[in-house]
Amino acid sequence: MTVPRIGVTLGDPGGVGPEIVLKALAGGRSLPPASIILFGDSRVIAGEADALGLQFKAEPWRESQRGKAGIYLSEIGCPAADRDVRGPNARNGAASFRFFEVAVAAARGGGLDAVVTGPVSKASWKMAGLSWRGHTDYLESFYPGAIMSFWSDRLLVALFSHHLPLKEALGKIRRAALLDFFRGLSAAVGRIEGGPREFLVPGLNPHAGENGLLGTEEEQEIGPAVEAARKEGISISGPHPPDSVFRRALGRPDTLVAALYHDQGLIPFKLEAFESGVNATLGLPFARTSPDHGTAFDIAGQGNADPRSMVEALLLAGRFTSSAS
Amino acid sequence: MTVPRIGVTLGDPGGVGPEIVLKALAGGRSLPPASIILFGDSRVIAGEADALGLQFKAEPWRESQRGKAGIYLSEIGCPAADRDVRGPNARNGAASFRFFEVAVAAARGGGLDAVVTGPVSKASWKMAGLSWRGHTDYLESFYPGAIMSFWSDRLLVALFSHHLPLKEALGKIRRAALLDFFRGLSAAVGRIEGGPREFLVPGLNPHAGENGLLGTEEEQEIGPAVEAARKEGISISGPHPPDSVFRRALGRPDTLVAALYHDQGLIPFKLEAFESGVNATLGLPFARTSPDHGTAFDIAGQGNADPRSMVEALLLAGRFTSSAS
Repeated sequence: MTVPRIGVTLGDPGGVGPEIVLKALAGGRSLPPASIILFGDSRVIAGEADALGLQFKAEPWRESQRGKAGIYLSEIGCPAADRDVRGPNARNGAASFRFFEVAVAAARGGGLDAVVTGPVSKASWKMAGLSWRGHTDYLESFYPGAIMSFWSDRLLVALFSHHLPLKEALGKIRRAALLDFFRGLSAAVGRIEGGPREFLVPGLNPHAGENGLLGTEEEQEIGPAVEAARKEGISISGPHPPDSVFRRALGRPDTLVAALYHDQGLIPFKLEAFESGVNATLGLPFARTSPDHGTAFDIAGQGNADPRSMVEALLLAGRFTSSAS
Repeated sequence: MTVPRIGVTLGDPGGVGPEIVLKALAGGRSLPPASIILFGDSRVIAGEADALGLQFKAEPWRESQRGKAGIYLSEIGCPAADRDVRGPNARNGAASFRFFEVAVAAARGGGLDAVVTGPVSKASWKMAGLSWRGHTDYLESFYPGAIMSFWSDRLLVALFSHHLPLKEALGKIRRAALLDFFRGLSAAVGRIEGGPREFLVPGLNPHAGENGLLGTEEEQEIGPAVEAARKEGISISGPHPPDSVFRRALGRPDTLVAALYHDQGLIPFKLEAFESGVNATLGLPFARTSPDHGTAFDIAGQGNADPRSMVEALLLAGRFTSSAS
């Protein structure tokens, strides 16, 4: 028996990324059985370990070590990266992108089964002259069918659309696109051990449109798409009243809510899973998870960042790849 | 010292209304110091008390009893009302409307300080030939500035618009209308003892538009309205990212989230306050509260309905009217 290879990127050197990555990897926490390969700059890593008083030992990763569980390092030298800049910064933007870019390239080439990403700053990326607005945006440029999803013990949510103005997001709610989304979701989570088996679809309008009284999208677009997906054998129901469907899914890990727009899914998710939520991109040829929080520059460098969400992201990557080995 | 007069309507005779009203009034629960006047049909009430094994004693209400705390009855004879119909029904729709109509007329005439409403069925009202879609809809025909709000220990939410298709609700988000809403909210809750003193306004778009990248309503409509309200002395902030503002308000009873559309406010509220939430209509010359659930025909008549939300509605009506006495 072999183990999956999970790449972990360090995130923005000035944010909480290095801290939560090291606390997760060197803090004696339970980790998935895997070759865990950290993509980062060893000088930043050493500085962070020093600041936290943690021992971080990692052999350089080589493909010949495939199959051996342990913590490894893939050195991505970024001499300009600066741990002490606690805010958006071009050099740190370039560094955090570089860690991610190399890890994604490895995964795309078949050298990794999963990528777990430390938090990056959109502002830092912008200052570094990068056009992508975040990890998912970059991944979508390779995989347009990528799906943003959010996982916690209590609630599972996927988003039909994400970073769009609400009016534009509403315009995308069409039968054919929804059916594609349901198919992609079903194909992606069907492979996951203990993953959700049932999808709940909220309506768009109050009370799911109340038979057309409060909106027509349910009858014209959402309902027919759900029906078509069901006919293809997907376990799916809806449209349900948006203000009760999340309650219904709560505490049921076999159930995922397929939300129609960013805040429909993220308002309830962030309320329920503030510190332990994990962001996962589905529909890629490899797994990708991430803690569900940002760089938190305001608390970076103080040693108080909670690594729970990063640990959960690693464990979820382990679940996603348990059949990859 | 005198006490406020709180009218309580029985709700749909076939729903859980009579059960939760009687459990609240005759169940030995703590109630606000008030003249509590039940508006209903004594035959339905007696039948329900009998089924529940509760003793319900109430003197007929007369204006001369004003100032005396106790439980009273305002008899609204509806001989056609039928407790045994556990579903939408024209006669029960007519009866539940009649209880409400008489109580509202009393409040409008200065004979009540508050009205607490038992759950009615929109379908029953429709079958009875009524055009109003619910309590709030009827109240809005008298008071167009009425504001729907939701109260619990954990979260307070008001809605800028409620029963509209989402696309239409988006079209209403205009500077002047928002400012009116903030003013109405401030005037209404300013009088409430221990009521919220600070309003948080979410944005409309993901991340509150992210400086125009993900939508323009924040910069063109919401931000200027918040700013104008603040200049008038209202304690208000925003637009905040919708997916973090509810978390921020959680557990802070001095803070109310002024949500921009039905599900923005009700998805988080119903997740947090499923069994104890109270619906309150603000901006009326009297208080109006209601349990935050419907007729629950599926469990009516079994004796298992939880009166907690009704008790909370009574206590909130007590808070709203504590300065009315």
